[in-house]
Amino acid sequence: MVKVHVYVTLKSGVLDPQGSAVKNSLHTLGYNEVQEVKVGKFMELTVENGENLEERVKEMCEKLLSNPVIEDYSFEIEEVVSS
Amino acid sequence: MVKVHVYVTLKSGVLDPQGSAVKNSLHTLGYNEVQEVKVGKFMELTVENGENLEERVKEMCEKLLSNPVIEDYSFEIEEVVSS
Repeated sequence: MVKVHVYVTLKSGVLDPQGSAVKNSLHTLGYNEVQEVKVGKFMELTVENGENLEERVKEMCEKLLSNPVIEDYSFEIEEVVSS
Repeated sequence: MVKVHVYVTLKSGVLDPQGSAVKNSLHTLGYNEVQEVKVGKFMELTVENGENLEERVKEMCEKLLSNPVIEDYSFEIEEVVSS
């Protein structure tokens, strides 16, 4: 068994209203040193180890986990729990 | 300037309907090797380097970026862009 960590972020240039809202709230709380906030998704998949794992995870990211038009993704195959 | 990567995940035991939905969709697409999906948040903060950076990021996480009742957080101070 394998843990896959998937990170999905907005491509640069895509408007990130959620990030702006978080930044403004941080400023309101007094954290004025924060200059930019980008909000993305983080997913942890527990996957049975098999052939073409990396290739299949890439497909999952492109088909479902991210929207390739406006988002970038990256993933790490993290840790092998006693298979 | 410093980049801070913040990862927010649901505590184990907290119901994750979004994760279940993603898992079911992956199964529908034929990725039956996926056993569990947890969905969390990933945030990238660009912060001016200053005193107590780590302490202040911890406060931000506890006050705003995560809900400590149901979520865990972790962060990495990632990369120093020419300050």
